[in-house]
Amino acid sequence: IPPGRAEPVTTPEVERLLDCMKWDANGLVVAIAQHVDTGAVLMQGFADRDAVSATLASRRATFFSRSRQCLWTKGETSANFIHVVDVFLDCDRDSVIYLGSPDGPTCHTGEETCYFIRADDVVSGGLQYAKENKLQVLTSLYSLEKVIRNRAEEGETAVVAAGKTPPAKPSWTRKLLSNPELLCAKVREEADELCRTLEESEGKDRVASEMADLLYHSMVLLSLQGVTLEDVAKVLRGRFPLSGIEEKNSREGTS
Amino acid sequence: IPPGRAEPVTTPEVERLLDCMKWDANGLVVAIAQHVDTGAVLMQGFADRDAVSATLASRRATFFSRSRQCLWTKGETSANFIHVVDVFLDCDRDSVIYLGSPDGPTCHTGEETCYFIRADDVVSGGLQYAKENKLQVLTSLYSLEKVIRNRAEEGETAVVAAGKTPPAKPSWTRKLLSNPELLCAKVREEADELCRTLEESEGKDRVASEMADLLYHSMVLLSLQGVTLEDVAKVLRGRFPLSGIEEKNSREGTS
Ligand SMILES: [Zn+2]
Ligand SMILES: [Zn+2]
Ligand SMILES: [Zn+2]
Ligand SMILES: [Zn+2]
Ligand SMILES: [Zn+2]
Ligand SMILES: [Zn+2]
Ligand SMILES: [Zn+2]
Ligand SMILES: [Zn+2]
Ligand SMILES: [Zn+2]
Repeated sequence: IPPGRAEPVTTPEVERLLDCMKWDANGLVVAIAQHVDTGAVLMQGFADRDAVSATLASRRATFFSRSRQCLWTKGETSANFIHVVDVFLDCDRDSVIYLGSPDGPTCHTGEETCYFIRADDVVSGGLQYAKENKLQVLTSLYSLEKVIRNRAEEGETAVVAAGKTPPAKPSWTRKLLSNPELLCAKVREEADELCRTLEESEGKDRVASEMADLLYHSMVLLSLQGVTLEDVAKVLRGRFPLSGIEEKNSREGTS
Repeated sequence: IPPGRAEPVTTPEVERLLDCMKWDANGLVVAIAQHVDTGAVLMQGFADRDAVSATLASRRATFFSRSRQCLWTKGETSANFIHVVDVFLDCDRDSVIYLGSPDGPTCHTGEETCYFIRADDVVSGGLQYAKENKLQVLTSLYSLEKVIRNRAEEGETAVVAAGKTPPAKPSWTRKLLSNPELLCAKVREEADELCRTLEESEGKDRVASEMADLLYHSMVLLSLQGVTLEDVAKVLRGRFPLSGIEEKNSREGTS
């Protein structure tokens, strides 16, 4: 048994949880590992009773391998554990989410998540094309972050490869990335515009629009300094007691 | 057949995609519906070849019901469809994510997502307690949003129920919620502090910390005006071509 493999530990209370879950004919439920800060679905496996109790006891995402017919803890060989903050069951209790923080890339290919094959890419260009394209599943804010990062990398390429003519009309993002003074002026301006939506009761659409402006410009500033939204979400998770029992206790606290 | 049920439509290219997927003994893969803006895992079901091709053709999340042994489109009876923006396969192609935008609550119980039974709540208080607690799975930023909303609701309760003595020491969040001038001053100040991390090269930790300050205070301002991070993410998704082919084309564009 690899030293990193978590052990199932149960108490009568944990048995009560396991007894209320709906196990399939093979004694399994679907188990989804999700990144607590970014929301990325990292991987999907299956869990038996031992995998769920091992996860709860160790707070490391643990699954049942259908191919090897045994328990395995994500990271037991790679040391890239997924530290589980919370576990949720779905309404009919045949599916669980392990909400956690990964030590490193989850996929054995080195990708952040296992979901990097885009169906439309397979349809248009075939499996090999889609695999090489490695387009990770990303939700809106993280897609925007990637768009900004792409612009930054194009900028670097343009500088390094002097022979390559830069695009005729630089994008607004590239302009901001290359002009810190303009960028800071915009961040301050957008914060001011967001405040004025409240001060002048400009309505919900304007609030959402100005917050989008502020977020976008702030994210360009983050990107320029090599900081990610994930870093920021992690800071906030450390500051606020964000889930479960802690959240309730905090309602008597000072946050 | 319900009128809202999507129909499987294939082309040779779609067949090529279906042929490269790894179907289990029952001809199924796990299918996870995820909210494109918030990242919330909405529900998990299964998909056969018809369900995947119906989803791709209709762009509405469609599953194979194991209990009824038939195709079903989420929303075919409730009209709460999940409009699919993108579909991803995992590395071994036996699991798909339908990344989409739901018309309303996904769970038949009226909850936003099906994952509202917290395992630790079942362990500590039993299934009934956990079900009534309805603690939805939430990632960091959305947990913080909920903490802020809870503070706002406490404030309202305190005003309405005049008999109830308010907490001795109001939290910082409640203070901000009750003082728009202070709140706007803080948003402007935090934007300024974020800019100074760049202007004075204060280092990554300070950048993340100041962005966390700015985000938190902006979210209080949003909450006060009934606007959510989801609204903001949706605005950004509308502005930026955020995924797949559009994202690539946009690299020659103006964003
Ligand atoms: Zn279920
Ligand atoms: Zn670790
Ligand atoms: Zn993988
Ligand atoms: Zn603006
Ligand atoms: Zn898989
Ligand atoms: Zn609709
Ligand atoms: Zn449900
Ligand atoms: Zn300050
Ligand atoms: Zn600050």
